[in-house]
Amino acid sequence: MTDRARIYTAALVVIGDEILSGRTHDKNIAQIASWLQVQGIRLTEVRVVADDMPAIIAAVNALRTAHDYLFTTGGIGPTHDDITVDAVAEALGVPVVIHPEAHAMLAAYYEHRDGGLNEARLRMARVPEGAELIPNHMSGAPGIRHGNVHLMAGVPAITAQMLDALTGTLEGGAVLLSDTVGGWIRESEVAGLLRQTEKDHEGCQIGSYPFFREGRTGANFVIRSTDSAMLAACLDALCEGLAAQELDFTRGGI
Amino acid sequence: MTDRARIYTAALVVIGDEILSGRTHDKNIAQIASWLQVQGIRLTEVRVVADDMPAIIAAVNALRTAHDYLFTTGGIGPTHDDITVDAVAEALGVPVVIHPEAHAMLAAYYEHRDGGLNEARLRMARVPEGAELIPNHMSGAPGIRHGNVHLMAGVPAITAQMLDALTGTLEGGAVLLSDTVGGWIRESEVAGLLRQTEKDHEGCQIGSYPFFREGRTGANFVIRSTDSAMLAACLDALCEGLAAQELDFTRGGI
Repeated sequence: MTDRARIYTAALVVIGDEILSGRTHDKNIAQIASWLQVQGIRLTEVRVVADDMPAIIAAVNALRTAHDYLFTTGGIGPTHDDITVDAVAEALGVPVVIHPEAHAMLAAYYEHRDGGLNEARLRMARVPEGAELIPNHMSGAPGIRHGNVHLMAGVPAITAQMLDALTGTLEGGAVLLSDTVGGWIRESEVAGLLRQTEKDHEGCQIGSYPFFREGRTGANFVIRSTDSAMLAACLDALCEGLAAQELDFTRGGI
Repeated sequence: MTDRARIYTAALVVIGDEILSGRTHDKNIAQIASWLQVQGIRLTEVRVVADDMPAIIAAVNALRTAHDYLFTTGGIGPTHDDITVDAVAEALGVPVVIHPEAHAMLAAYYEHRDGGLNEARLRMARVPEGAELIPNHMSGAPGIRHGNVHLMAGVPAITAQMLDALTGTLEGGAVLLSDTVGGWIRESEVAGLLRQTEKDHEGCQIGSYPFFREGRTGANFVIRSTDSAMLAACLDALCEGLAAQELDFTRGGI
């Protein structure tokens, strides 16, 4: 399933007024990013859009052909503001149909629950024609896969279940490895060192992430590479450089 | 400064490999969204892009003309991976220059600090030509404003300082008000009620946000409107509808 030399990319469309209003802090970006990294796939762009048909359609169409994989989160529930299936179907140019297997899953799930499989719940069996289901053991309502487009839930715990079901099924490349070193260091003290160390180690990128905690300034430096030997050499060189500047640092970051 | 009838929109470009790798959970989207809401401005699109010149330039150019305001976060520090100023300058078609006031601010800030105003720190005085500064009392390095484009820090606490400095300076419209009611309710039980209540109250939107906590299913229903009387009427109607279905609910949400 894996071509180590190729870089596989993914994009994510986060759908939801609740993220754009600031009411809800998104957790799906980090969750999906971390999961993709383990699959050997790099998340390279995210768009957050409102519960708005034209906005969702535009984002899906801009990203699904530019990347190996597209994920969406949100808008696949039973209420009137859940319009992701309709928008993605329109983007793909296919009709919305009831998926028989999803229908059966929801019927079984709601059989002994108050209200049974009502009209609203049946909405969650609607898919763009030609789609497969992504199982979700938590709520009964499945995720949806259509070609390279994956529709996941807005609730992070449900999306976690769907990602679990997808694990190992997507073709990826070499996994991007990372290692961190950090300390109570102002990044402006070591900017030259970081730049030179990255330059000296082809195939490695160094990111500098400053923070303010306990009234003090610090930074973590994250080295990324698909090659573990190159990563280790770059890390050693950076640690030597920090030691040469008589700076205290901790491998693994602080 | 305010035209209540007009809807003012903003977009945000979050710049940083650390968000796309899943290493860092973004906090700026929610922070900026909440702040904009109080200014009478709606955040309608967010893009998260890598520390990559073409990606930043493309996002900035796609969004700055489509919205009243564009914000960026990240990439304005002193290290080699901080390329936001260069990318925005290229997007705007202007050169990068040293801003004399930023230079003076940084010189004062670093005067009594180890290393003084070194070459890396001086990078933080670079701006797209024609820019104004957005003060930041925490780290000395200012944010940058050029026309409708606002460059903010990646560290949320620093961005908070910059937002504070901008408060009241941007032209906005009527503030979008919201009220919430929630309970241990499955949203699929009340989908019909939500849809009908929204339909009956023009100018109000109802969002349904399910969650799983303590092994139970619940949902919050958020009503949004720019008109406080319409908002109150819609909230009352929704509460009556929930009571008619003999559901327990809490005003303010749970």
